Amino acid sequence: MSPTASRPQKVGRPRAQGPSDGRLAPREEVLAAAAELFTRDGYAATTTRAVAERAGLRQASMYHYFARKEDILATLLEGTVAPSLAFADQLRAEPEAAPGARLWALVRFDTALLLGGLSNLGALYQLPEVRGERFAEFRRTRAELAAAYREFLVPLAASWSAGELALRGGLVLGLVEGGVAVAREGEGRPPATVARAVADAALRLAGCTAEQLMAARSD
Amino acid sequence: MSPTASRPQKVGRPRAQGPSDGRLAPREEVLAAAAELFTRDGYAATTTRAVAERAGLRQASMYHYFARKEDILATLLEGTVAPSLAFADQLRAEPEAAPGARLWALVRFDTALLLGGLSNLGALYQLPEVRGERFAEFRRTRAELAAAYREFLVPLAASWSAGELALRGGLVLGLVEGGVAVAREGEGRPPATVARAVADAALRLAGCTAEQLMAARSD
Repeated sequence: MSPTASRPQKVGRPRAQGPSDGRLAPREEVLAAAAELFTRDGYAATTTRAVAERAGLRQASMYHYFARKEDILATLLEGTVAPSLAFADQLRAEPEAAPGARLWALVRFDTALLLGGLSNLGALYQLPEVRGERFAEFRRTRAELAAAYREFLVPLAASWSAGELALRGGLVLGLVEGGVAVAREGEGRPPATVARAVADAALRLAGCTAEQLMAARSD
Repeated sequence: MSPTASRPQKVGRPRAQGPSDGRLAPREEVLAAAAELFTRDGYAATTTRAVAERAGLRQASMYHYFARKEDILATLLEGTVAPSLAFADQLRAEPEAAPGARLWALVRFDTALLLGGLSNLGALYQLPEVRGERFAEFRRTRAELAAAYREFLVPLAASWSAGELALRGGLVLGLVEGGVAVAREGEGRPPATVARAVADAALRLAGCTAEQLMAARSD
């Protein structure tokens, strides 16, 4: 039944001699293999054994990097939000070039990050397993990213109530995550084009005029 | 392990004498039970036996309504898109009150539909199983809904290329589905408030001015 059962030749490759294709370190091979299997076959249906096989590692070697399947998933999910949060910090460190410039840049970065991976990891956000304790760090980081969206909306907020600001912040996050999901189903538009379009859409959603949008774009 | 193992008392209730709580017909009880279990425990982890138990039916009786687990999921998913597509047809049957009025009304309807159910069925759209043949009808209906969004954007399209129109249509669908996902995690804002906010956001995303938005709202 396992889709990887036909690749037993990779099992037991001597990893001490370096990554299998000269591309990735073993830990990264595990993450790449798991991302592919979790999104292709489902998280529940994927065994750690299948992940190890696909990564070209013995199961015992894989446990050196990840003790449990949820540690692999948590690492993958944190990798979809932590870089965007770090980028938000970077944006905060400099004065804003024009109202909405930070929002535009963060939406573009976040969208490009989510579109950039080979696997659609965003599809795993709503797994029941992700409500568990092991994923608290991921959920916290994603909540901080949502807070950055709210904060970066403020220079564009006309006379919005706190509730309106929170609502629009949530819609920007939903636009990014939902827009990526739909774009991944589509006819393979270049990620950079989609990322710009989502950033433009976020600023329009925030009420920007065409002139404000032009000024806020950072390219 | 089964979360329904503690409710065996419902098994074998004589369904010929009517719905268990006087609320739902047996077929609807199966759908409601499955929606709850699929989103709470995961689709792969939910057995048809658990669904039958929760619905208060013998497994053999449930097979009268749904032969396989994927028939239940397909029915649930089709129920999240078919009503919106029917509503789009209704909107097409009347002249548009103002540019964007159909788009506003459809986004509001679709968002309210997705927010209305007890379970977050949108979280199941990206299951690997949904790529299978049994879900072709669901995928076709959702694609027709996406086409309706594109069509209803046309009265607002300034000098967009076909590619730009397709991109914005996809972003409207992404905004609805992603916005619903984020709103369901939030602090329980009234669905009607969220549905209006998403409809407003869709029109802003399409480039509407505040005046055009006011004219397009149908309430």
